[in-house]
Amino acid sequence: MAFERLVRYEHKAEVTFGNLIETLDDGFKVSKLNGDLTQGFSASGEEAITLLCPLERTPIVQCVGVNYRKHAEEAKMKVPTYPVIFTKPADALTGPMDDIPIHPDCQDKMDYEGELTVVIGRDAKNVTEAHALDYVLGYCIGNDVSCRTFQMPDASGGQFCYCKSFDKFAPIGPAIWSTSLISDPQKLKYVTRVNGEVRQETGTDDMIWSVRQIIAHLSRGMTLRKGTVIMTGTPAGIGAFQKKFLKDGDVVEVELLGFGKVVNKMSFL
Amino acid sequence: MAFERLVRYEHKAEVTFGNLIETLDDGFKVSKLNGDLTQGFSASGEEAITLLCPLERTPIVQCVGVNYRKHAEEAKMKVPTYPVIFTKPADALTGPMDDIPIHPDCQDKMDYEGELTVVIGRDAKNVTEAHALDYVLGYCIGNDVSCRTFQMPDASGGQFCYCKSFDKFAPIGPAIWSTSLISDPQKLKYVTRVNGEVRQETGTDDMIWSVRQIIAHLSRGMTLRKGTVIMTGTPAGIGAFQKKFLKDGDVVEVELLGFGKVVNKMSFL
Repeated sequence: MAFERLVRYEHKAEVTFGNLIETLDDGFKVSKLNGDLTQGFSASGEEAITLLCPLERTPIVQCVGVNYRKHAEEAKMKVPTYPVIFTKPADALTGPMDDIPIHPDCQDKMDYEGELTVVIGRDAKNVTEAHALDYVLGYCIGNDVSCRTFQMPDASGGQFCYCKSFDKFAPIGPAIWSTSLISDPQKLKYVTRVNGEVRQETGTDDMIWSVRQIIAHLSRGMTLRKGTVIMTGTPAGIGAFQKKFLKDGDVVEVELLGFGKVVNKMSFL
Repeated sequence: MAFERLVRYEHKAEVTFGNLIETLDDGFKVSKLNGDLTQGFSASGEEAITLLCPLERTPIVQCVGVNYRKHAEEAKMKVPTYPVIFTKPADALTGPMDDIPIHPDCQDKMDYEGELTVVIGRDAKNVTEAHALDYVLGYCIGNDVSCRTFQMPDASGGQFCYCKSFDKFAPIGPAIWSTSLISDPQKLKYVTRVNGEVRQETGTDDMIWSVRQIIAHLSRGMTLRKGTVIMTGTPAGIGAFQKKFLKDGDVVEVELLGFGKVVNKMSFL
């Protein structure tokens, strides 16, 4: 059987896949899935648990910058003729309920970026926009955690990778929603909250480059490997333009409306 | 036993490790090494062969930009307060004698960047400059192959990743020279030639950030995994500033003087 809302969780010291059924006040209802992404799944039972990252590992996190019209306006950034691409390494990936460790040198200007996140399901190369979504395993919501201290051009030379590549700076989840549940990724809405206060609120129809266009662009001459995570850009409302940086213990919540959310606490080291 | 000049090659349909003894006109003399990087090696026999990439795979290629004083001058780029970091994905890695496939959309402004390349030998996190070289497996010479069409700010928004991330855009080799042969990476010299014409010629003493400083910076709050490849920046003399872009069939050679070279032909698709 195929999954619809794929989660991973630990129960009685065993890590397993599940299908998310319901979010409870103190946990989650899931049907346990036997099997894996390669072999397929069979379902059995229900349990309430804490969720791990739905993807055990990734080859790389590909990220898109300047991809919402209203964010390009607030950032006063010119929109280039192709999607703006940068990356996070594999160790940036983390779960929907994990604390994010913040290195002492990063604590001055920590920020959030709520983002629709795509998980690639099979190797893609030179894929057309028409066929791009055939390569999608499913979608998550995610947070492109960013340290603005290292993003300023004086520090970075203008390159975005370093300030976003610290361990666990890419929480995704809570489930991977299959393409049978999300057939059009440009018709979603999501909200970012810090300690409950709404900071970002958008529809994915404000995206400049669609998921189809991003996959086609990324796969040009470059093998986009199965398991690759794509963070598709953040909307208006980041902390930097409001001079509201994250503090120790702040909780950032990014919720894909009608689906679920990642909830991560900033843990200053 | 430890290796000194680690190569990989295919002989009688078997891929094996070897220690490079001598470069011949029509091949290489090696002593075959039984074992692997985790278990260690034992030596036996000699063969003449074509060399593969000395590293079978990598988690990621971390790259440094604007890292030679004379290159910063020719590029009229201000040197930031930290190393300029961008990446190439795992599939960019390729061997010292492999052809580089060039996608039709990239053929207009192809360029070379000869670079001293570091291979990380064990996981590193929050490493000091004093201990940084303890995490080095060895050194290669490499070419940070770049398509300037996609590097121009109008196309890329100023991000370097995409234009350098195409499959096989990171040839390294011909051997991994161990730290017993290269104890000070800041005292090396290398040359880049296109069809035999010298284009870049430098000492690594012109580097702005040393290998020690780069490893300390990259490992800050970020796990630098065993097998990570670090391309440490290119010196003055890239094609873009001479309006001399690479054509189909051009052969780019980057030679670490006294050690060996990567020789790669541009193959326009």
